[in-house]
Amino acid sequence: MNSLKPASEGLRTRIFQLIFESDTPLAKAFDIALIGVILGSVLVVMLESVAPLRERYGSWFYWLEWGFTLIFTFELAVRLYCLERPWKYLRSFYGIIDLLAILPTWLALMLPGAQSLVVVRLLRVLRIFRVLRLMEFIGEGRLLLDALKRSARQIFLFLFTVCMLITIFASLVYLIEPAEAGFTSIPKAIYWAAVTLTTVGYGDITPVTPLGQTISVMMMLTGYSIIAVPTGVFSAEVIRSIRADRYSDEACPGCGHDRHEKRASYCLHCGTWLDEETPDPRAENDDAPHGDKP
Amino acid sequence: MNSLKPASEGLRTRIFQLIFESDTPLAKAFDIALIGVILGSVLVVMLESVAPLRERYGSWFYWLEWGFTLIFTFELAVRLYCLERPWKYLRSFYGIIDLLAILPTWLALMLPGAQSLVVVRLLRVLRIFRVLRLMEFIGEGRLLLDALKRSARQIFLFLFTVCMLITIFASLVYLIEPAEAGFTSIPKAIYWAAVTLTTVGYGDITPVTPLGQTISVMMMLTGYSIIAVPTGVFSAEVIRSIRADRYSDEACPGCGHDRHEKRASYCLHCGTWLDEETPDPRAENDDAPHGDKP
Amino acid sequence: MNSLKPASEGLRTRIFQLIFESDTPLAKAFDIALIGVILGSVLVVMLESVAPLRERYGSWFYWLEWGFTLIFTFELAVRLYCLERPWKYLRSFYGIIDLLAILPTWLALMLPGAQSLVVVRLLRVLRIFRVLRLMEFIGEGRLLLDALKRSARQIFLFLFTVCMLITIFASLVYLIEPAEAGFTSIPKAIYWAAVTLTTVGYGDITPVTPLGQTISVMMMLTGYSIIAVPTGVFSAEVIRSIRADRYSDEACPGCGHDRHEKRASYCLHCGTWLDEETPDPRAENDDAPHGDKP
Amino acid sequence: MNSLKPASEGLRTRIFQLIFESDTPLAKAFDIALIGVILGSVLVVMLESVAPLRERYGSWFYWLEWGFTLIFTFELAVRLYCLERPWKYLRSFYGIIDLLAILPTWLALMLPGAQSLVVVRLLRVLRIFRVLRLMEFIGEGRLLLDALKRSARQIFLFLFTVCMLITIFASLVYLIEPAEAGFTSIPKAIYWAAVTLTTVGYGDITPVTPLGQTISVMMMLTGYSIIAVPTGVFSAEVIRSIRADRYSDEACPGCGHDRHEKRASYCLHCGTWLDEETPDPRAENDDAPHGDKP
Repeated sequence: MNSLKPASEGLRTRIFQLIFESDTPLAKAFDIALIGVILGSVLVVMLESVAPLRERYGSWFYWLEWGFTLIFTFELAVRLYCLERPWKYLRSFYGIIDLLAILPTWLALMLPGAQSLVVVRLLRVLRIFRVLRLMEFIGEGRLLLDALKRSARQIFLFLFTVCMLITIFASLVYLIEPAEAGFTSIPKAIYWAAVTLTTVGYGDITPVTPLGQTISVMMMLTGYSIIAVPTGVFSAEVIRSIRADRYSDEACPGCGHDRHEKRASYCLHCGTWLDEETPDPRAENDDAPHGDKP
Repeated sequence: MNSLKPASEGLRTRIFQLIFESDTPLAKAFDIALIGVILGSVLVVMLESVAPLRERYGSWFYWLEWGFTLIFTFELAVRLYCLERPWKYLRSFYGIIDLLAILPTWLALMLPGAQSLVVVRLLRVLRIFRVLRLMEFIGEGRLLLDALKRSARQIFLFLFTVCMLITIFASLVYLIEPAEAGFTSIPKAIYWAAVTLTTVGYGDITPVTPLGQTISVMMMLTGYSIIAVPTGVFSAEVIRSIRADRYSDEACPGCGHDRHEKRASYCLHCGTWLDEETPDPRAENDDAPHGDKP
Repeated sequence: MNSLKPASEGLRTRIFQLIFESDTPLAKAFDIALIGVILGSVLVVMLESVAPLRERYGSWFYWLEWGFTLIFTFELAVRLYCLERPWKYLRSFYGIIDLLAILPTWLALMLPGAQSLVVVRLLRVLRIFRVLRLMEFIGEGRLLLDALKRSARQIFLFLFTVCMLITIFASLVYLIEPAEAGFTSIPKAIYWAAVTLTTVGYGDITPVTPLGQTISVMMMLTGYSIIAVPTGVFSAEVIRSIRADRYSDEACPGCGHDRHEKRASYCLHCGTWLDEETPDPRAENDDAPHGDKP
Repeated sequence: MNSLKPASEGLRTRIFQLIFESDTPLAKAFDIALIGVILGSVLVVMLESVAPLRERYGSWFYWLEWGFTLIFTFELAVRLYCLERPWKYLRSFYGIIDLLAILPTWLALMLPGAQSLVVVRLLRVLRIFRVLRLMEFIGEGRLLLDALKRSARQIFLFLFTVCMLITIFASLVYLIEPAEAGFTSIPKAIYWAAVTLTTVGYGDITPVTPLGQTISVMMMLTGYSIIAVPTGVFSAEVIRSIRADRYSDEACPGCGHDRHEKRASYCLHCGTWLDEETPDPRAENDDAPHGDKP
């Protein structure tokens, strides 16, 4: 968002502050109103999918939907108006979500009457992606996101190993269990193995042979124990994030090294006295504990 | 509870100590008796809901219930009697729970005979909220509660993200899966998605199409991995709580070392007296245990 | 076990070392053989419970069982013989487990022929408790056990809160859901609530009303998140246990304080120089950084 | 792999670098191509197991399979050609996996026409073990693997305890529950107990008696809580791994401070030069960046 600069005129700047920032009380009120509209529109999409409600309150949902779409369209127009480079915003992540929030309804309008039900249903449900607009408001969860990013590689390795385990276990059980128990193909066995290893356990497919059940028990114990891995990695990362507070960003005046523990008095790199406000005790008294005297 | 002061007379003060505090042996005995009565009354409500037991032991339950209600009513009366501002207690959290513990039974008495079964059932079950009275006795779990409070914001962000994930996944699977498999509406799909992502996995609704099963597997792996997030946040918080209890941040005036245990009187590095407000006992009396005499 | 002293004669002492200790190669071999016999006897009990196997190999199981019982009986006899106070051992935890391992078979022998099946079945299954004898061999998992003991109070508080949550949620859903869905009584609803909150999710009882399903989703999210609590508490405890290694047990020669960080040079309590092998730098050069000179 | 040395001729050495190392762009491209081929061949095995796909695209799968097998065979031949001791590689872990990837197809060719279906099916499914070849590429996950190895003993103890708990609980519930509920033998009860304790919860076997359900609830709460144990152990291990990388234990010769980052050249407390083997650059040249000159 930082590359988006407001146009210089007064009105535009004020609208920019209202919409893109959240420092002033008015801007905060705008944010809260927007959250309300988003949640409301998502709720309408949800309720409209319930057949009895759609039959009884169909026209209500129809007009509410148009109301929400007009609000979102107007908001997007204002947003684009007060930006200097509107196309850049439209191609950004949040711009695409903004478009996704209004396009389905406008597309449905443009469709000829005898439209296939599938397309209508798709457009209807796609509107629920408006919920993604809420992501703008949780962007502040920095600490979590940072820790997640830094442990992403390890957690990816973990998930990769889990997928390999699932494939191997699934193939073994597919060999053992009869097709009647639901293990009709390897992909099906993989679905079952994922259900088991992640401790979800639907129970729509379950092993019936003693050997298959034994392997299942081994899978369960594996899945139950290895959850410790991502948890341990992420815990360590969060603890490290918190501890990173212990480090100062100030550069050493001697060598420029800029990652000292906050309690450090001397640069660990070149030995320069770091606290510029008080004099270095080594310079004052010659009987300093270290021996680098002339 | 600290804003509640006992009335100054002798009897009241002694009752106050008996009921509101737990220092004396008598007060402890009172607490244990109260826990017993609470558990007993909750047990009666539970057993009364079992149809065969209600038919056979109905009158027993009836009289036991009245016994418990009278005990709780008497206790509340005494509690209010020995307080200076009884109304304030009644409007406090514990006061409301105390009322909740006796009101249903008294209300049932006042109802005319031909009462609708729903209200009677409601009142009967509401009595089980007496179990909340036990919260008074676990209030001491300070460390846990503090760590929970401080990580509440992060865990809320986590839950919010989980809800967004559930909504998006549910919509996708609702589009893919047929209504016959149980995915009749988006709210139903959300129920299923929550069952899957939290690794509960009832299995009352399960995906039947290959694409739906593939997305389910992705959901399971997501749910299985991201449990690491609240766990990591909370672990870091508990570790911080424990450590903050132990170490002081103040630097040693002698050598600048700034990570001493709070109970330390002397710097572990250079032996300097740390408590600057009182004089060093070594300087005062020559018979100090160590030998660095003048 | 430390209060059990071997009788002083030679043979007894050597048997004692063989059975109760595991330092010599022979004693280790004895331990491994014992583990094998225990696992074998447990396997026989398991397989005997499978009807087709019992019918075919019934007599094999019978004779194997007597073999194992005689081995265990002989071992217990020898164990008691080489102890000075056999009765004390019999009443100890491991003594009771030893008795439990042989009593069912001997009792079955003493029963008159026309014995009720229930008792026979009970005795047969009770033999599986022999598996508890393996606990002797995992006693070394000190670190884990210690951490568990120290976090026991917090984890008990957690379980207690979970039980309260289960009771409250169960009562609410019992009020909402019809009896046909399986919520026939509060105890049944509690069973369901435990199945849901612990993310087990059998699916034998599931909510059918929209409101019941909404509350279930809240329960699942709660259960999914609060697993962070015991995990965080226990993690912190294990980390603390490991860190406890950083502390030395040696008492300060000045004041007797015996919990210093290993890197400490001066007692944090009385300032005495801790390293007795090298002289205190404060005593040698008067220009030591701290100022407690005459 | 480090004991495998390339033959000294030019071509062999260059092939060795291409296949066994991944430093040059070409070697990286080779790795990526190999990953693609592995994933492709695994996908073919999976899809071939789906009956409708096998019927329609059977011949495609057949020729693709031969293509993959020839690629793997050629690759293995080249691999062996450029090694000095090819037999040693064949008996190594990765060599066995390489053989496993091609043997089933070649074996199927050599089988006489009227082969039993079981063997054919077995050989077909065994090919999926090619997925194990991907392990070569995740070998870099050192930190995780190291932490896992060091906590392996504790996690084994944990799993052992879990197995003992499962056996005991299973026997109890087997005694209580009727065979009609599915508890027909102790092994079956053990399967159910593992499903319950690991919070998988298929629901194919569920307790039906009140007492059995009560014990189940206790098992669930146990399983729900003790997951904290491996997680705590592993978290502590990862945190220790990260920290051990960073800090050195050697004490500063000047002030005795013994917790420096490994990259430190000067004590953060007193500025003393830490590397005792090389002289302090400050003492040698007077134009050192810091100003404590004579």
